Amino acid sequence: MAGEFALIERLLNQAGVASAMPAPGLLLGPGDDCALIAPPENGTAWAITTDMLVEGTHFLATDDPENLGWKTLAVNLSDLAAMGAKPRYVTLAVALSADDASSGWVDQFFRGFSTCAQQFGVDLIGGDTTRGPRTFCVTAIGSVQPGQALRRSGAQDQDDIWISGNPGLAALGLAYKLGTTTLAPTLAALASKALHRPLPRVALGLALTGLAHSCLDVSDGLLQDLGHITTASGLAATLHQAALPATPTGVNDALWQHCLLGGGDDYELLFTAPAAAREALTALSSQLDLPLHRIGQMHADGTAGRINLLDAQQQPIDLASIRQGYDHFA
Amino acid sequence: MAGEFALIERLLNQAGVASAMPAPGLLLGPGDDCALIAPPENGTAWAITTDMLVEGTHFLATDDPENLGWKTLAVNLSDLAAMGAKPRYVTLAVALSADDASSGWVDQFFRGFSTCAQQFGVDLIGGDTTRGPRTFCVTAIGSVQPGQALRRSGAQDQDDIWISGNPGLAALGLAYKLGTTTLAPTLAALASKALHRPLPRVALGLALTGLAHSCLDVSDGLLQDLGHITTASGLAATLHQAALPATPTGVNDALWQHCLLGGGDDYELLFTAPAAAREALTALSSQLDLPLHRIGQMHADGTAGRINLLDAQQQPIDLASIRQGYDHFA
Repeated sequence: MAGEFALIERLLNQAGVASAMPAPGLLLGPGDDCALIAPPENGTAWAITTDMLVEGTHFLATDDPENLGWKTLAVNLSDLAAMGAKPRYVTLAVALSADDASSGWVDQFFRGFSTCAQQFGVDLIGGDTTRGPRTFCVTAIGSVQPGQALRRSGAQDQDDIWISGNPGLAALGLAYKLGTTTLAPTLAALASKALHRPLPRVALGLALTGLAHSCLDVSDGLLQDLGHITTASGLAATLHQAALPATPTGVNDALWQHCLLGGGDDYELLFTAPAAAREALTALSSQLDLPLHRIGQMHADGTAGRINLLDAQQQPIDLASIRQGYDHFA
Repeated sequence: MAGEFALIERLLNQAGVASAMPAPGLLLGPGDDCALIAPPENGTAWAITTDMLVEGTHFLATDDPENLGWKTLAVNLSDLAAMGAKPRYVTLAVALSADDASSGWVDQFFRGFSTCAQQFGVDLIGGDTTRGPRTFCVTAIGSVQPGQALRRSGAQDQDDIWISGNPGLAALGLAYKLGTTTLAPTLAALASKALHRPLPRVALGLALTGLAHSCLDVSDGLLQDLGHITTASGLAATLHQAALPATPTGVNDALWQHCLLGGGDDYELLFTAPAAAREALTALSSQLDLPLHRIGQMHADGTAGRINLLDAQQQPIDLASIRQGYDHFA
């Protein structure tokens, strides 16, 4: 059976490099006490984020390991995207059972991780491998002009609120996986893909620098994450139910509302932008072939942090039952 | 009970900052999707390392949480030290039980983490908190002139081999903790401190840039880690038993040899330097009030990667039984 160092080497070699040539700024890759990266291009800062995925909390023992490898990296790249940063480097620490290390499980995991790394052009620059309950921790590093970084706190009065892609689909996939709902085969496949193979909105995040005033990625539910923007920006928000993505055919309305507003794991970008940016955002949506939904407005005339959802008659809808996002310690 | 975000905020606020003022290069601290750090000083690169600590593998449920918090950060700063890098920033991802999150356990952990961060002047710039078996993952970032970084592969023929401090003491502390040996109270206290409260040799690492040809920190055992230097540098090594730190009074010779050569968790720096550096290293030892032991030589006339240990009569000692370092997947 392979020892720790052999395992590290095998995995890093397998998953490590986005290309056969080392990245230009990578002065020293895996294998020493530290990796060394050159200073970023003139004027750019490093954006840094870290996320830990734990079996039983974020994924199940029976989940497909290749999808899990993809998702482990994708959720971190999503944080870079939400900052408007270009993904560059990642480190990966893993705890695995002895069985994992010797079985094909880990190779499949790294195939998924590597596919995601290659697709988004990031290099794995270091890692750690240890024995323990299956746990993965990625730290991702991206480059961004500091003045253009998309912060949560930058929303302004009268900003439009936008969300990308297909929010709610991942939570619908989870409900399907847990047997809470049945779905037609095509929708089931889409929802499962959204849950297990989320696409970090990297190109969108890069394009939003200079257009959006604030941004984050939806990992804990649209309402909870919008709450972070409203609180950090000291504003209130109003959402219009009629502007939200419609209930997919055959799905229960109440379930969909819960998935859309309270479900996590979407990794879509939720952002605010001035009305003047509408035309550019519509063009961007076409260019990226990615839906961008304008779902509400930020406003200063309300309790900071408060979110209202209005129905077609402009009447408030009670949010208490769907507001609760996914809170690991609730 | 505190929700995840409240917990993160509390812990980051508590452990986060090395000083009341944010660090000069820290453009954006915890609380957004990413932290933002300014480019390093002219010409310096970032050294980056990541380590995961898992309950049952690296520590016990009964371990003192404050010491564990210290050690979680210290072992990562040790990797920066081994590179000759100045510690600057860290991220911390933690998996905890619901009980941990609400009990004083986690506050004690963060007290230890924070004490270490303050002592070495690093800022906690981001983190993640989730539910799961107790696991900690730190990514540490330091600055170093790339040409001066201390790599494993830089050892040269006829280099002296040096090791800092008190190698073997941590493994002795582990043997004592596990009841494998008894120790006199003073030695037991010293050994336990080495095990639970290791001191990353940051000042030594910084001073070794320009003096040492190669360096790493001993986390898996002196022989195993020296093996990394010999293999990476394509050289053989000879150690002299008479030059190794002597068996402490009252300790079994065989146990000590095992602790010294095969034990992990010392986090002392193992480095090679030319004979011309002896005087400077002796002066450095006095200046830092830190023993530096000259224990052998590197040489090109032998099988690359091979390590010999010679007794006082220059006869080889069998290393097979003590060679095996701590291998999580062995």
